[in-house]
Amino acid sequence: MTATPPAGQRPISEVARDLDIAPDHLEPYGRDKAKVHLDVLSSGRKPGKLILVSAITPTPAGEGKTTTSIGLAQGLHRIGKRAALALRQPSMGPVFGRKGGATGGGLSKVEPSNKINLQFTGDFHAITAAHNLLAAAIDNRLYFRDLDLDPTRILWKRALDMNDRSLRRIVVGLGGHSQGVPRESGFDITAASEVMAILCLSESLRDLRERLDRILVGYAGDGSPVLAKRLGVTGAMTAILKEAILPNLVQTTESTPAFIHGGPFANIAHGCNSVLATRMALATADYAVTEAGFAFDLGGEKFLDLKCRSAGLNPAVIVLVATIRALKMHGGVPLPDITKTDAAAVERGLVNLAAHLDSAEHFGKPVVVAINQFGTDTAEEVGVVENFCKGRNIPCSPANVFGAGGEGAIDLAEKVVAAASYPETPYKPLYPLDWSAERKIEQIAKVMYGAAGVSFQQMAEQKLRKAEKLGYGQLPICMAKTQDSLSDDPKRRGRPQGFTLHVRDIEIAAGAGFLVALTGEIMRMPGLPLRPAGERIDVDEAGEITGLS
Amino acid sequence: MTATPPAGQRPISEVARDLDIAPDHLEPYGRDKAKVHLDVLSSGRKPGKLILVSAITPTPAGEGKTTTSIGLAQGLHRIGKRAALALRQPSMGPVFGRKGGATGGGLSKVEPSNKINLQFTGDFHAITAAHNLLAAAIDNRLYFRDLDLDPTRILWKRALDMNDRSLRRIVVGLGGHSQGVPRESGFDITAASEVMAILCLSESLRDLRERLDRILVGYAGDGSPVLAKRLGVTGAMTAILKEAILPNLVQTTESTPAFIHGGPFANIAHGCNSVLATRMALATADYAVTEAGFAFDLGGEKFLDLKCRSAGLNPAVIVLVATIRALKMHGGVPLPDITKTDAAAVERGLVNLAAHLDSAEHFGKPVVVAINQFGTDTAEEVGVVENFCKGRNIPCSPANVFGAGGEGAIDLAEKVVAAASYPETPYKPLYPLDWSAERKIEQIAKVMYGAAGVSFQQMAEQKLRKAEKLGYGQLPICMAKTQDSLSDDPKRRGRPQGFTLHVRDIEIAAGAGFLVALTGEIMRMPGLPLRPAGERIDVDEAGEITGLS
Repeated sequence: MTATPPAGQRPISEVARDLDIAPDHLEPYGRDKAKVHLDVLSSGRKPGKLILVSAITPTPAGEGKTTTSIGLAQGLHRIGKRAALALRQPSMGPVFGRKGGATGGGLSKVEPSNKINLQFTGDFHAITAAHNLLAAAIDNRLYFRDLDLDPTRILWKRALDMNDRSLRRIVVGLGGHSQGVPRESGFDITAASEVMAILCLSESLRDLRERLDRILVGYAGDGSPVLAKRLGVTGAMTAILKEAILPNLVQTTESTPAFIHGGPFANIAHGCNSVLATRMALATADYAVTEAGFAFDLGGEKFLDLKCRSAGLNPAVIVLVATIRALKMHGGVPLPDITKTDAAAVERGLVNLAAHLDSAEHFGKPVVVAINQFGTDTAEEVGVVENFCKGRNIPCSPANVFGAGGEGAIDLAEKVVAAASYPETPYKPLYPLDWSAERKIEQIAKVMYGAAGVSFQQMAEQKLRKAEKLGYGQLPICMAKTQDSLSDDPKRRGRPQGFTLHVRDIEIAAGAGFLVALTGEIMRMPGLPLRPAGERIDVDEAGEITGLS
Repeated sequence: MTATPPAGQRPISEVARDLDIAPDHLEPYGRDKAKVHLDVLSSGRKPGKLILVSAITPTPAGEGKTTTSIGLAQGLHRIGKRAALALRQPSMGPVFGRKGGATGGGLSKVEPSNKINLQFTGDFHAITAAHNLLAAAIDNRLYFRDLDLDPTRILWKRALDMNDRSLRRIVVGLGGHSQGVPRESGFDITAASEVMAILCLSESLRDLRERLDRILVGYAGDGSPVLAKRLGVTGAMTAILKEAILPNLVQTTESTPAFIHGGPFANIAHGCNSVLATRMALATADYAVTEAGFAFDLGGEKFLDLKCRSAGLNPAVIVLVATIRALKMHGGVPLPDITKTDAAAVERGLVNLAAHLDSAEHFGKPVVVAINQFGTDTAEEVGVVENFCKGRNIPCSPANVFGAGGEGAIDLAEKVVAAASYPETPYKPLYPLDWSAERKIEQIAKVMYGAAGVSFQQMAEQKLRKAEKLGYGQLPICMAKTQDSLSDDPKRRGRPQGFTLHVRDIEIAAGAGFLVALTGEIMRMPGLPLRPAGERIDVDEAGEITGLS
């Protein structure tokens, strides 16, 4: 495979034309990005096939899921298929923190990457503003004693798109009589806001508004629930989000169209781009490539049980991304050594891939394994994975998407097209909604994670009873679990066996429409590392951003 | 005068063409707004004349300064002059609070007003993000004990574009060892952020970066200053602000071009749109109409002594906006009665207009008085003001900008053009920079406010000594004073005499380049009223925002 230079970026109106999106359905944001009107959804075109890209349990550097998704879409384009991407927008906080940018890599990127990593079209900022307007309205009602709201039982916090650990736990309203009512609170990162989850699951502005109305913000003195509608600002929140609800269109290195919209955290929320962006890719292309955050146990499960169930989506193919270095990690190699050749470790690490393949098969969809290739991979190591997949009768394709773009994913694209040509299987969730919450959680824990059982801490039990009493028992479950292991212990690599999953708390996301089951220590507001990535970002003499991606 | 219906809004590229702004200097944000490249500043065109619009001491509802500025620009257009506006962007917080929208009114508005009042092109959000990145970096250094920074002497707070009194005084970093270092802090509204002031005074991205570097964030253990540069994220802050520094182009009801850019508070900061937007209006039009927040004593003085001094600007004409109802208020009429006819009260209230005229004359510029007309004004009342102005040999024009748009401001426009045709007088600041800070403050207090003297509280004295010791003694002064009175007591209407101005504290805005002298109770973070404007804002069935403006 040889590296092909990236094609010059085209005006976004031309990219839109590839998808038959008319100019009057576009709101340009500069020349290189645009918001797309929802009218496009009723184009009348036969919907495309949905390709879900997920991964095995990743190394801290990630498996290159986004890069592979982009490479795959470019590969589909190269074999003459009309393809579009539906991806999450990176959260700006982590861009300045440990992670840096998140727009793919090498010859498989979405552009303009610097803008996508920073402000983009302002959606995250709008979500932050809508979230904080509700918070301000809550404290304002407390201040004027205008609503029966127990200041010690307010669930709604504030949000910022920033990694800022000092805001995790704060006391607000200090300074005496005219400065508000003192109480404990905190900030979550915007990606963890329920408004983000709501925007990503909404079908329309009206649906968005109804979901905002349903947010459970806290409890009255008698313990009865207080919903956001009572605060009187959900109309204004909807007004703030009016443009943010429109999907954003950009293009890849090779000019393949990409809808980038929404970015809920994958550990705490459902972790995939908006329903509207996915629908738009399906409405305008024959193959819509989307990804689900982190590994399949976490992101894939939530994509299928939350997003697909809510929106009536049904993927045709599941692509599982694996890397040789992650398999070595799961085979017991310490992180600093995973670039060293070790085919035996790869062999041992296949248990992790096997676990995710088993999980994916529960949903009754064809699976293709993509090996995201690195320069340190050897033919022998890659062969180990190929043989394993052959043994399970699963198509497997090594893809050089970073180094060769779409050219490096032609074989992968062909295998995906072949798998997508099977007769469509019906959508099959992992659990029905009328099971008890405990049973739903146990089903996910046993089937997806391989747990022997689930233990519920007292607080979680109490909250589940409360949720049922309030009529939220029929909601699906959004698992909040570490991405670093199939279990809730981030140190357990490979395919842990016989462990108990510990559910320590439950949250009611009534607007988004799920119950969050918290396991282990899940961070809703990341911190900055000692040397944050933000210290490497700058603007050069020519006015160009450096050090970002 | 008859009401002319607003012309249909034109595509923003056509509006740009009126100013000879080439398409490749535009970054469209939708069809109705665009960011404009700074290359436009070096067009080589002869710079236009700068018209500064300010006002007498306003009623709580304001004097319609923005509406008059817009009407005046439309009037100039109607008499065949090439005119452009340079205005502030409204702060979103107050839009949901007491104030509602701030984009003019009637037939003198800037459009798309709903978008301008809310997200617009995201500049305020970018400023918020840049501000909070610096805050996160500060607390991160405290957490890692990586910089000698005294946690009890950190000056930099956080910012949000929200009216939220509960965030004024908070404790951050609670929750134990891994959650940061507990300390007192707070949030200011974004309009009060020094990053906002810096963006508005910057001449280029490089100048912006250098100003960010110079921000005084706090003190080390030995009392020595710690500047933002030491925190290592000013490059990333510049990257965040890279697009925000570009002025935004929109149009008025009658399609007159308007640059809307930046919005520092006028009570706490310098209160006018960006230097770059003003320069752009001057570079592309023959008449650039701009406004300075609140009354002339506050906004006008700061426009001239801070912005014009820093940027080398020199207004040709000063327009003072007065309303009959405000004059009645200054004549002693209680607020609920100011719509009732009372020519004698108008006569008594002229002392306030006289004070501002005297102040404006100190700068050696021709002045035109604009009476912003309301339906309740009588001919007799208007005649009182006209006679007074005639006596002082000052042109005066009643303008019906709300009801009749540019047609209602033709006489005003003609008077402004006549005044602007006088030979240009040199720029004359109120004080030289090498005076002591005390003397500068006394000069402003006596000449602009009519104070008998100034008293400095001990804290202010100490801070002034500290500022001088650190080399900030040469900076000009940004007065933070109530807008409701010429004095520092908001209850004193008219032209208060013999009062002492009380300076209670001093702040060093080293990046913006001024010392803030705080008098009275100045709010950096407004609160919401019992029934906030946000409760009236909604989105209707057609997806249009209602209740906003």
